[in-house]
Amino acid sequence: MKNTSTRDKLIDTGAELIAQHGYNATGINAVLNSCGVPKGSFYHYFSSKEDFGLAVIERFADDYAVGLKALLEDESVTPLERLQRYFARGRDYMQTCNHETGCLIGNLGQELSGQSDVFRDALNTVFQRWEQHFVACLQAAQAQGAVSPRADVQALASFILSGWEGAILRAKTLKSVTPMEQFESILFEYVLVDTVARQSA
Amino acid sequence: MKNTSTRDKLIDTGAELIAQHGYNATGINAVLNSCGVPKGSFYHYFSSKEDFGLAVIERFADDYAVGLKALLEDESVTPLERLQRYFARGRDYMQTCNHETGCLIGNLGQELSGQSDVFRDALNTVFQRWEQHFVACLQAAQAQGAVSPRADVQALASFILSGWEGAILRAKTLKSVTPMEQFESILFEYVLVDTVARQSA
Repeated sequence: MKNTSTRDKLIDTGAELIAQHGYNATGINAVLNSCGVPKGSFYHYFSSKEDFGLAVIERFADDYAVGLKALLEDESVTPLERLQRYFARGRDYMQTCNHETGCLIGNLGQELSGQSDVFRDALNTVFQRWEQHFVACLQAAQAQGAVSPRADVQALASFILSGWEGAILRAKTLKSVTPMEQFESILFEYVLVDTVARQSA
Repeated sequence: MKNTSTRDKLIDTGAELIAQHGYNATGINAVLNSCGVPKGSFYHYFSSKEDFGLAVIERFADDYAVGLKALLEDESVTPLERLQRYFARGRDYMQTCNHETGCLIGNLGQELSGQSDVFRDALNTVFQRWEQHFVACLQAAQAQGAVSPRADVQALASFILSGWEGAILRAKTLKSVTPMEQFESILFEYVLVDTVARQSA
Protein backbone atom coordinates (compact mmCIF):
# COMPACT_ATOMS: atom_id res chain seq x y z
CA MET A 1 0.00 0.00 0.00
CA LYS A 2 1.31 3.43 -0.94
CA ASN A 3 2.15 5.87 1.81
CA THR A 4 -0.38 8.62 1.09
CA SER A 5 1.14 11.07 3.53
CA THR A 6 4.44 11.07 1.61
CA ARG A 7 2.48 11.51 -1.63
CA ASP A 8 0.57 14.40 -0.06
CA LYS A 9 3.79 15.97 1.14
CA LEU A 10 5.27 15.78 -2.36
CA ILE A 11 2.14 17.35 -3.87
CA ASP A 12 1.96 20.15 -1.30
CA THR A 13 5.66 20.98 -1.66
CA GLY A 14 5.34 20.77 -5.45
CA ALA A 15 2.39 23.16 -5.42
CA GLU A 16 4.40 25.63 -3.37
CA LEU A 17 7.53 25.46 -5.53
CA ILE A 18 5.55 25.53 -8.79
CA ALA A 19 3.59 28.57 -7.57
CA GLN A 20 6.89 30.33 -6.89
CA HIS A 21 9.01 29.26 -9.86
CA GLY A 22 6.69 27.76 -12.49
CA TYR A 23 6.41 24.16 -13.62
CA ASN A 24 9.35 24.02 -16.03
CA ALA A 25 11.76 25.57 -13.54
CA THR A 26 10.72 23.23 -10.72
CA GLY A 27 12.87 20.11 -10.77
CA ILE A 28 11.80 16.85 -9.17
CA ASN A 29 15.01 16.90 -7.11
CA ALA A 30 14.14 20.29 -5.65
CA VAL A 31 10.75 18.92 -4.56
CA LEU A 32 12.33 15.81 -3.02
CA ASN A 33 15.07 17.80 -1.26
CA SER A 34 12.63 20.36 0.01
CA CYS A 35 10.50 17.75 1.77
CA GLY A 36 13.30 15.37 2.70
CA VAL A 37 12.03 12.44 0.66
CA PRO A 38 14.70 10.12 -0.80
CA LYS A 39 15.30 10.41 -4.53
CA GLY A 40 14.24 6.90 -5.37
CA SER A 41 10.77 7.42 -3.94
CA PHE A 42 9.33 9.76 -6.54
CA TYR A 43 8.46 7.11 -9.14
CA HIS A 44 6.81 5.05 -6.45
CA TYR A 45 4.11 7.72 -6.33
CA PHE A 46 4.13 9.28 -9.79
CA SER A 47 4.84 7.79 -13.23
CA SER A 48 6.44 11.01 -14.53
CA LYS A 49 6.89 14.71 -13.82
CA GLU A 50 3.77 15.31 -15.93
CA ASP A 51 1.79 12.87 -13.78
CA PHE A 52 3.05 14.76 -10.73
CA GLY A 53 2.11 18.14 -12.26
CA LEU A 54 -1.41 16.85 -12.97
CA ALA A 55 -1.74 15.67 -9.35
CA VAL A 56 -0.67 19.13 -8.14
CA ILE A 57 -3.29 20.76 -10.38
CA GLU A 58 -5.99 18.36 -9.22
CA ARG A 59 -5.22 18.96 -5.54
CA PHE A 60 -5.14 22.75 -5.89
CA ALA A 61 -8.30 22.81 -8.00
CA ASP A 62 -10.22 20.56 -5.62
CA ASP A 63 -9.21 22.57 -2.55
CA TYR A 64 -10.07 25.82 -4.31
CA ALA A 65 -13.45 24.49 -5.48
CA VAL A 66 -14.42 23.62 -1.90
CA GLY A 67 -13.92 27.25 -0.82
CA LEU A 68 -15.55 28.61 -3.98
CA LYS A 69 -18.63 26.42 -3.52
CA ALA A 70 -18.93 27.34 0.18
CA LEU A 71 -18.82 31.05 -0.62
CA LEU A 72 -21.04 31.01 -3.72
CA GLU A 73 -23.70 28.74 -2.23
CA ASP A 74 -23.88 30.47 1.15
CA GLU A 75 -27.60 31.09 1.45
CA SER A 76 -27.20 33.37 4.48
CA VAL A 77 -26.42 36.23 2.06
CA THR A 78 -27.74 37.27 -1.37
CA PRO A 79 -26.08 35.81 -4.50
CA LEU A 80 -24.45 39.14 -5.39
CA GLU A 81 -23.14 39.51 -1.82
CA ARG A 82 -21.62 36.01 -2.19
CA LEU A 83 -19.70 37.24 -5.23
CA GLN A 84 -18.51 40.27 -3.26
CA ARG A 85 -17.32 38.01 -0.45
CA TYR A 86 -15.51 35.85 -2.97
CA PHE A 87 -13.70 38.89 -4.40
CA ALA A 88 -12.84 40.11 -0.89
CA ARG A 89 -11.41 36.67 -0.03
CA GLY A 90 -9.29 36.76 -3.20
CA ARG A 91 -7.86 40.15 -2.28
CA ASP A 92 -7.11 38.91 1.26
CA TYR A 93 -5.24 35.96 -0.23
CA MET A 94 -3.23 38.20 -2.56
CA GLN A 95 -2.16 40.30 0.41
CA THR A 96 -1.27 37.17 2.40
CA CYS A 97 1.00 35.90 -0.39
CA ASN A 98 2.51 39.39 -0.77
CA HIS A 99 0.98 39.62 -4.30
CA GLU A 100 3.46 36.99 -5.44
CA THR A 101 1.87 33.66 -6.26
CA GLY A 102 -1.63 34.62 -7.40
CA CYS A 103 -3.67 31.81 -8.96
CA LEU A 104 -1.76 28.57 -9.58
CA ILE A 105 -4.18 27.55 -12.35
CA GLY A 106 -3.79 30.92 -14.07
CA ASN A 107 0.00 30.71 -13.76
CA LEU A 108 0.13 27.22 -15.23
CA GLY A 109 -2.40 28.14 -17.91
CA GLN A 110 -0.06 30.89 -19.10
CA GLU A 111 3.03 28.70 -18.88
CA LEU A 112 1.85 25.35 -20.18
CA SER A 113 -1.16 25.77 -22.49
CA GLY A 114 1.02 26.19 -25.56
CA GLN A 115 3.39 23.39 -24.57
CA SER A 116 1.17 20.47 -23.65
CA ASP A 117 -2.37 19.53 -24.61
CA VAL A 118 -2.55 17.25 -21.57
CA PHE A 119 -1.94 20.18 -19.21
CA ARG A 120 -4.06 22.52 -21.29
CA ASP A 121 -7.03 20.16 -21.09
CA ALA A 122 -6.60 19.67 -17.34
CA LEU A 123 -6.36 23.43 -16.68
CA ASN A 124 -9.26 24.21 -18.99
CA THR A 125 -11.42 21.66 -17.18
CA VAL A 126 -10.62 23.39 -13.88
CA PHE A 127 -11.59 26.79 -15.27
CA GLN A 128 -14.80 25.38 -16.70
CA ARG A 129 -15.71 23.81 -13.36
CA TRP A 130 -15.08 27.10 -11.55
CA GLU A 131 -17.10 28.94 -14.21
CA GLN A 132 -20.09 26.73 -13.48
CA HIS A 133 -20.04 27.86 -9.84
CA PHE A 134 -20.35 31.44 -11.10
CA VAL A 135 -23.16 30.39 -13.47
CA ALA A 136 -25.08 28.83 -10.57
CA CYS A 137 -24.59 31.95 -8.42
CA LEU A 138 -25.76 34.22 -11.26
CA GLN A 139 -28.78 31.97 -11.83
CA ALA A 140 -29.62 32.29 -8.13
CA ALA A 141 -29.35 36.09 -8.54
CA GLN A 142 -31.68 35.86 -11.54
CA ALA A 143 -34.18 33.81 -9.52
CA GLN A 144 -34.20 36.58 -6.91
CA GLY A 145 -34.62 39.29 -9.54
CA ALA A 146 -31.18 40.82 -8.91
CA VAL A 147 -29.99 39.97 -12.44
CA SER A 148 -32.24 40.29 -15.49
CA PRO A 149 -33.87 37.03 -16.67
CA ARG A 150 -32.65 37.89 -20.16
CA ALA A 151 -28.95 38.13 -19.19
CA ASP A 152 -26.70 35.40 -20.65
CA VAL A 153 -25.33 34.04 -17.38
CA GLN A 154 -22.90 31.71 -19.13
CA ALA A 155 -21.27 34.64 -20.95
CA LEU A 156 -21.36 36.73 -17.76
CA ALA A 157 -19.65 33.93 -15.82
CA SER A 158 -16.93 33.68 -18.48
CA PHE A 159 -16.53 37.48 -18.33
CA ILE A 160 -16.17 37.41 -14.53
CA LEU A 161 -13.63 34.58 -14.53
CA SER A 162 -11.54 36.18 -17.30
CA GLY A 163 -11.65 39.60 -15.67
CA TRP A 164 -10.77 38.24 -12.26
CA GLU A 165 -7.82 36.20 -13.56
CA GLY A 166 -6.55 39.26 -15.44
CA ALA A 167 -6.97 41.45 -12.37
CA ILE A 168 -4.90 38.95 -10.33
CA LEU A 169 -2.16 39.13 -12.96
CA ARG A 170 -2.19 42.94 -12.82
CA ALA A 171 -2.16 42.81 -9.01
CA LYS A 172 1.03 40.74 -9.21
CA THR A 173 2.84 43.17 -11.50
CA LEU A 174 1.58 46.21 -9.55
CA LYS A 175 2.14 44.54 -6.14
CA SER A 176 -1.23 45.95 -5.09
CA VAL A 177 -4.83 44.72 -5.06
CA THR A 178 -6.02 47.94 -6.74
CA PRO A 179 -6.68 46.23 -10.12
CA MET A 180 -8.82 43.63 -8.28
CA GLU A 181 -10.76 46.42 -6.55
CA GLN A 182 -11.22 48.26 -9.84
CA PHE A 183 -12.45 45.09 -11.53
CA GLU A 184 -15.06 44.47 -8.84
CA SER A 185 -16.14 48.08 -8.67
CA ILE A 186 -16.72 48.41 -12.44
CA LEU A 187 -18.36 44.97 -12.55
CA PHE A 188 -20.90 45.97 -9.91
CA GLU A 189 -21.32 49.54 -11.12
CA TYR A 190 -22.05 48.62 -14.72
CA VAL A 191 -22.64 44.93 -15.25
CA LEU A 192 -24.32 43.26 -12.31
CA VAL A 193 -26.32 45.68 -10.22
CA ASP A 194 -27.98 47.39 -13.12
CA THR A 195 -28.91 44.52 -15.38
CA VAL A 196 -32.56 44.60 -14.32
CA ALA A 197 -32.87 48.38 -14.40
CA ARG A 198 -31.23 48.58 -17.82
CA GLN A 199 -32.96 45.74 -19.56
CA SER A 200 -36.40 46.81 -18.40
CA ALA A 201 -35.76 50.44 -19.38
CA MET B 1 30.87 49.49 -32.27
CA LYS B 2 28.45 46.72 -31.41
CA ASN B 3 26.86 44.75 -34.20
CA THR B 4 23.20 45.69 -33.70
CA SER B 5 21.89 43.10 -36.15
CA THR B 6 23.32 40.24 -34.06
CA ARG B 7 21.86 41.86 -30.94
CA ASP B 8 18.49 42.15 -32.72
CA LYS B 9 18.68 38.52 -33.80
CA LEU B 10 19.35 37.43 -30.21
CA ILE B 11 16.43 39.51 -28.92
CA ASP B 12 14.00 38.28 -31.58
CA THR B 13 14.96 34.64 -31.05
CA GLY B 14 14.81 35.12 -27.29
CA ALA B 15 11.31 36.61 -27.55
CA GLU B 16 10.18 33.62 -29.59
CA LEU B 17 11.66 31.01 -27.25
CA ILE B 18 10.51 32.82 -24.10
CA ALA B 19 6.99 33.10 -25.52
CA GLN B 20 7.00 29.34 -26.08
CA HIS B 21 8.78 28.06 -22.97
CA GLY B 22 8.84 30.91 -20.44
CA TYR B 23 11.86 32.86 -19.19
CA ASN B 24 13.21 30.39 -16.63
CA ALA B 25 13.10 27.47 -19.03
CA THR B 26 14.84 29.38 -21.83
CA GLY B 27 18.60 28.94 -21.59
CA ILE B 28 21.06 31.36 -23.13
CA ASN B 29 22.63 28.44 -25.00
CA ALA B 30 19.29 27.59 -26.62
CA VAL B 31 18.98 31.18 -27.85
CA LEU B 32 22.54 31.19 -29.19
CA ASN B 33 22.17 27.78 -30.87
CA SER B 34 18.83 28.72 -32.37
CA CYS B 35 20.24 31.77 -34.15
CA GLY B 36 23.69 30.37 -34.85
CA VAL B 37 25.59 32.93 -32.78
CA PRO B 38 28.81 31.68 -31.12
CA LYS B 39 28.62 31.12 -27.37
CA GLY B 40 31.22 33.72 -26.51
CA SER B 41 29.19 36.51 -28.09
CA PHE B 42 26.31 36.76 -25.63
CA TYR B 43 28.12 38.84 -23.01
CA HIS B 44 29.33 41.19 -25.71
CA TYR B 45 25.71 42.33 -26.04
CA PHE B 46 24.17 41.68 -22.62
CA SER B 47 25.63 41.84 -19.14
CA SER B 48 23.44 38.97 -17.85
CA LYS B 49 20.43 36.83 -18.66
CA GLU B 50 18.34 39.38 -16.74
CA ASP B 51 19.69 42.20 -18.89
CA PHE B 52 18.77 40.11 -21.95
CA GLY B 53 15.26 39.42 -20.59
CA LEU B 54 14.72 43.13 -20.01
CA ALA B 55 15.81 43.87 -23.60
CA VAL B 56 13.30 41.27 -24.87
CA ILE B 57 10.53 42.90 -22.82
CA GLU B 58 11.47 46.37 -24.04
CA ARG B 59 11.49 45.29 -27.69
CA PHE B 60 8.17 43.46 -27.46
CA ALA B 61 6.52 46.31 -25.54
CA ASP B 62 7.75 48.98 -27.94
CA ASP B 63 6.60 47.04 -31.01
CA TYR B 64 3.24 46.33 -29.42
CA ALA B 65 2.78 49.98 -28.37
CA VAL B 66 3.29 51.13 -31.98
CA GLY B 67 0.38 48.96 -33.15
CA LEU B 68 -1.76 49.86 -30.12
CA LYS B 69 -1.22 53.59 -30.69
CA ALA B 70 -1.97 53.32 -34.41
CA LEU B 71 -5.24 51.50 -33.71
CA LEU B 72 -6.40 53.59 -30.75
CA GLU B 73 -5.56 56.96 -32.30
CA ASP B 74 -6.98 56.21 -35.75
CA GLU B 75 -9.23 59.21 -36.28
CA SER B 76 -10.92 57.69 -39.33
CA VAL B 77 -13.20 55.74 -36.97
CA THR B 78 -14.91 56.54 -33.65
CA PRO B 79 -13.02 55.85 -30.39
CA LEU B 80 -15.25 52.88 -29.53
CA GLU B 81 -14.78 51.43 -33.03
CA ARG B 82 -11.02 51.74 -32.48
CA LEU B 83 -11.35 49.57 -29.39
CA GLN B 84 -13.39 47.05 -31.38
CA ARG B 85 -10.68 46.94 -34.06
CA TYR B 86 -8.06 46.42 -31.36
CA PHE B 87 -9.99 43.47 -29.94
CA ALA B 88 -10.49 42.01 -33.43
CA ARG B 89 -6.73 42.34 -34.09
CA GLY B 90 -6.01 40.52 -30.82
CA ARG B 91 -8.29 37.65 -31.81
CA ASP B 92 -6.66 37.43 -35.24
CA TYR B 93 -3.26 37.19 -33.56
CA MET B 94 -4.45 34.45 -31.20
CA GLN B 95 -5.64 32.44 -34.17
CA THR B 96 -2.35 33.05 -36.00
CA CYS B 97 -0.33 31.72 -33.04
CA ASN B 98 -2.72 28.77 -32.71
CA HIS B 99 -3.84 30.13 -29.29
CA GLU B 100 -0.42 29.21 -27.91
CA THR B 101 1.75 32.20 -27.09
CA GLY B 102 -0.80 34.88 -26.17
CA CYS B 103 0.67 38.04 -24.63
CA LEU B 104 4.39 37.90 -23.79
CA ILE B 105 4.03 40.60 -21.13
CA GLY B 106 1.12 38.73 -19.51
CA ASN B 107 3.08 35.47 -19.59
CA LEU B 108 6.16 37.03 -18.00
CA GLY B 109 4.01 38.92 -15.50
CA GLN B 110 2.62 35.60 -14.28
CA GLU B 111 5.99 33.88 -14.25
CA LEU B 112 8.34 36.53 -12.92
CA SER B 113 6.45 39.07 -10.79
CA GLY B 114 6.93 37.04 -7.62
CA GLN B 115 10.56 36.21 -8.40
CA SER B 116 12.15 39.51 -9.32
CA ASP B 117 11.28 43.11 -8.54
CA VAL B 118 13.39 44.23 -11.50
CA PHE B 119 11.20 42.25 -13.92
CA ARG B 120 8.03 43.12 -12.04
CA ASP B 121 8.75 46.83 -12.32
CA ALA B 122 9.59 46.55 -16.02
CA LEU B 123 6.42 44.57 -16.78
CA ASN B 124 4.25 46.85 -14.66
CA THR B 125 5.60 49.89 -16.50
CA VAL B 126 4.64 48.27 -19.81
CA PHE B 127 1.11 47.58 -18.58
CA GLN B 128 0.78 51.12 -17.28
CA ARG B 129 1.93 52.55 -20.62
CA TRP B 130 -0.60 50.41 -22.48
CA GLU B 131 -3.29 51.42 -20.02
CA GLN B 132 -2.68 55.08 -20.82
CA HIS B 133 -3.48 54.38 -24.49
CA PHE B 134 -6.85 53.02 -23.35
CA VAL B 135 -7.35 56.07 -21.12
CA ALA B 136 -6.70 58.40 -24.08
CA CYS B 137 -9.12 56.45 -26.28
CA LEU B 138 -11.83 56.52 -23.58
CA GLN B 139 -11.26 60.27 -23.11
CA ALA B 140 -11.75 60.72 -26.86
CA ALA B 141 -14.99 58.74 -26.55
CA GLN B 142 -16.03 61.01 -23.68
CA ALA B 143 -15.26 64.11 -25.76
CA GLN B 144 -17.60 62.77 -28.46
CA GLY B 145 -20.32 61.95 -25.94
CA ALA B 146 -20.04 58.17 -26.43
CA VAL B 147 -18.93 57.63 -22.81
CA SER B 148 -20.42 59.57 -19.90
CA PRO B 149 -18.34 62.57 -18.73
CA ARG B 150 -18.74 61.20 -15.19
CA ALA B 151 -17.19 57.79 -15.98
CA ASP B 152 -13.80 57.13 -14.30
CA VAL B 153 -11.79 56.43 -17.45
CA GLN B 154 -8.69 55.42 -15.49
CA ALA B 155 -10.63 52.67 -13.69
CA LEU B 156 -12.35 51.68 -16.94
CA ALA B 157 -8.99 51.40 -18.70
CA SER B 158 -7.65 49.21 -15.89
CA PHE B 159 -10.81 47.07 -16.14
CA ILE B 160 -10.38 46.67 -19.90
CA LEU B 161 -6.70 45.74 -19.68
CA SER B 162 -7.30 43.23 -16.86
CA GLY B 163 -10.28 41.69 -18.60
CA TRP B 164 -8.50 41.43 -21.92
CA GLU B 165 -5.38 39.82 -20.39
CA GLY B 166 -7.60 37.33 -18.53
CA ALA B 167 -9.57 36.57 -21.71
CA ILE B 168 -6.29 35.86 -23.54
CA LEU B 169 -5.32 33.42 -20.78
CA ARG B 170 -8.70 31.66 -21.05
CA ALA B 171 -8.36 31.58 -24.86
CA LYS B 172 -5.06 29.73 -24.40
CA THR B 173 -6.50 27.07 -22.11
CA LEU B 174 -9.67 26.71 -24.22
CA LYS B 175 -7.74 26.88 -27.53
CA SER B 176 -10.49 29.17 -28.81
CA VAL B 177 -11.08 32.92 -29.00
CA THR B 178 -14.57 32.53 -27.49
CA PRO B 179 -13.53 34.02 -24.09
CA MET B 180 -12.12 37.07 -25.96
CA GLU B 181 -15.40 37.43 -27.88
CA GLN B 182 -17.42 37.09 -24.67
CA PHE B 183 -15.30 39.69 -22.95
CA GLU B 184 -15.81 42.22 -25.77
CA SER B 185 -19.49 41.48 -26.11
CA ILE B 186 -20.26 41.97 -22.38
CA LEU B 187 -17.98 45.03 -22.23
CA PHE B 188 -19.90 46.72 -25.05
CA GLU B 189 -23.31 45.48 -23.98
CA TYR B 190 -23.03 46.66 -20.38
CA VAL B 191 -20.07 48.93 -19.78
CA LEU B 192 -19.21 51.08 -22.76
CA VAL B 193 -22.16 51.63 -25.03
CA ASP B 194 -24.61 52.43 -22.28
CA THR B 195 -22.60 54.66 -19.98
CA VAL B 196 -24.30 57.82 -21.26
CA ALA B 197 -27.80 56.36 -21.34
CA ARG B 198 -27.45 54.92 -17.84
CA GLN B 199 -25.83 57.80 -16.09
CA SER B 200 -28.30 60.33 -17.47
CA ALA B 201 -31.27 58.09 -16.61
